[in-house]
Amino acid sequence: MAKVFLTKNRSKRIEQGHPWVFKTEIETIEGGFNPGDIVDVLNFKGKFLGRGYINPRSQIAVRFLTYNRDEIIDRNFFKKRILDALKYRENLGFSGSFRVVYGESDLLPALIVDKFEDILVIQTLSLGIDRFKSTIVDVLREIFNPRGIYERNDVPVRDLEGLPQQKGYLYGEFDPIVVIEENGLNFYVDVEKGQKTGYFFDQKENRRAIAPLVKDADVLECFCYTGSFALCAAHFGARKVLAYDASNEAVEFARKNAEINNLSQICHFSEGNAFDVLRQFYDEGRKFDAVILDPPAFAKNKYALENAVRGYKEINLRGLKLLKPGGYLITSSCSHHVSEALFREIIESAAFDARLKLRLVESRTQAKDHPILVPAEETRYLKFLMLQVL
Amino acid sequence: MAKVFLTKNRSKRIEQGHPWVFKTEIETIEGGFNPGDIVDVLNFKGKFLGRGYINPRSQIAVRFLTYNRDEIIDRNFFKKRILDALKYRENLGFSGSFRVVYGESDLLPALIVDKFEDILVIQTLSLGIDRFKSTIVDVLREIFNPRGIYERNDVPVRDLEGLPQQKGYLYGEFDPIVVIEENGLNFYVDVEKGQKTGYFFDQKENRRAIAPLVKDADVLECFCYTGSFALCAAHFGARKVLAYDASNEAVEFARKNAEINNLSQICHFSEGNAFDVLRQFYDEGRKFDAVILDPPAFAKNKYALENAVRGYKEINLRGLKLLKPGGYLITSSCSHHVSEALFREIIESAAFDARLKLRLVESRTQAKDHPILVPAEETRYLKFLMLQVL
Repeated sequence: MAKVFLTKNRSKRIEQGHPWVFKTEIETIEGGFNPGDIVDVLNFKGKFLGRGYINPRSQIAVRFLTYNRDEIIDRNFFKKRILDALKYRENLGFSGSFRVVYGESDLLPALIVDKFEDILVIQTLSLGIDRFKSTIVDVLREIFNPRGIYERNDVPVRDLEGLPQQKGYLYGEFDPIVVIEENGLNFYVDVEKGQKTGYFFDQKENRRAIAPLVKDADVLECFCYTGSFALCAAHFGARKVLAYDASNEAVEFARKNAEINNLSQICHFSEGNAFDVLRQFYDEGRKFDAVILDPPAFAKNKYALENAVRGYKEINLRGLKLLKPGGYLITSSCSHHVSEALFREIIESAAFDARLKLRLVESRTQAKDHPILVPAEETRYLKFLMLQVL
Repeated sequence: MAKVFLTKNRSKRIEQGHPWVFKTEIETIEGGFNPGDIVDVLNFKGKFLGRGYINPRSQIAVRFLTYNRDEIIDRNFFKKRILDALKYRENLGFSGSFRVVYGESDLLPALIVDKFEDILVIQTLSLGIDRFKSTIVDVLREIFNPRGIYERNDVPVRDLEGLPQQKGYLYGEFDPIVVIEENGLNFYVDVEKGQKTGYFFDQKENRRAIAPLVKDADVLECFCYTGSFALCAAHFGARKVLAYDASNEAVEFARKNAEINNLSQICHFSEGNAFDVLRQFYDEGRKFDAVILDPPAFAKNKYALENAVRGYKEINLRGLKLLKPGGYLITSSCSHHVSEALFREIIESAAFDARLKLRLVESRTQAKDHPILVPAEETRYLKFLMLQVL
């Protein structure tokens, strides 16, 4: 096994538990290796720091799989890690449909496993983990005995690792549209054509958290995707929900989801660009008891931050202007590069422009099946605020 | 009514909704006034900014009661404000025992009203609001028809306003020990001799949030006060809870609370200094599935910050060392001066010293009956983290 020696003067990030070695931190490598191979990482004095997989093509040269010198990276290793990840979630009460593995936070870097009842969807987002794909599929079959496993590796981040974008069946043949249960509702999920792995489990607890805010409310939602927030609002007692998404496919799906939950009388889904929809309701003088905004990540990377800030500011400003006194703004950002502090500043600035005073009812992050690895800020991304207009 | 004109070059904090005028922001005052009187506040151009009460003796010279020029500060005003505060909480599902008024966040600066079933406890923490005490008591009687109202103005912050520290009955005669219901448990609360108003409603939702982490667990709690976290842990399925507080009175109370909930077999309360208790268990090699730390504010003011950081670091480091692999650290800070970011840094630093990797299961703040006024960071104080040792 090759040995990767790190430079002397790097920060102590890795000792603090950050699971990545950047290219620039490597002093020298002893021994031959192929991209994707398992390597040992040592400090400049030769002290063992951990073991992981290497990809010289990526800026993230090594990702740690273990800090235990005696642990061998084999089928048993993956079985143990995935069982640990499952146990953590089962102990917290997750069952049915949830994220089973959340990459670095489960010490399985770049691996995502989502469980949609008896269908699993996986992503292997780096070369090193991709090489274990068949082992992982095998282990998942043993642990879950699923009806099928689908691969959603059609994501640009794979380019950085020199991996092709691809998707398809890894095990079983099945209808890619599956039905899951969440917060007492049923949802159709398209694991083949839906966004990311098909559904956003990260907002599950936040969708429940809106319950006390939407009773008897007139609700507007933008970026509704397949309708999960809107349907939760209706389920928790909203009087009427108008929900919009720019994608007609998402809207069609949302309507089907309303139908199977008998909420079509309350939830009305339409195709519409959020910026236009918000402006139009403002021009019409319409007011709502609650406005829900759950946009996609406006800042996909740190270079896009300025535009992202402008985008978040604008939708939140427009959303605020549509609220009745005492109404609630329920707003999210899933851009990692927009920090909690920055997102709060954006909301404060929007409130100032709208000449409104806000109070924060609750501040939340991603659901507990997406735990945050404390030393790796990259695993923290979802901001979710429920605010009231005074 | 006197008119307070502000300086030209102050920050736009007030326009952003911050409810205080600092002494240093005042340019001039037109008209006579007595300390505690209602005054109008205007910018240097004479534009009306708001109306509030003045106390030239305090660094916080004016606190805003309204931003509406037509609103008169009289009995009706207080009735409307308190009804608004109550409505907000009732809509969110609060009933029985909760914080009815949380000062600045309810646009009733320096007023606290806690409801313990049919007993109310109030604090009037500034001169201006103190002058309305009898009006407020009158309004509270009308709205709640309580069995009694108690005053807990025995707090040092009143000194800054030139007010005496005092406590006592404002209405009714009653046993100051009342029984409240929370999270399916009953608690004795001593509104006369307990800390602050007798009980900490701000952790109510956090006490419920620990449920999935404590099932079948061996739990240690330090700073247990009258036992609410410990009893919740037991109620949610903990196998055994050892809980400590430095105050023997608190421990006696906690034991009574265990008795009335039939949890004395599970919860064992003892007098003990947290630092000593944590060290002793470490020396004995004891390990727990969960450690709960809910200390009082170590940083009462910004000058005490350095020592506070040291204190938080030490208890959390010691707590971490007592956890089994996979165990949970459930830790709080209620010091406003220790920011969320700083508290996280303290925990990270403790984890580094303990050579442990942590993941964040959930991050929470104060309960929804203590909403945060967005422009006033002073209303944000509680940090509550649930972390898992990897």
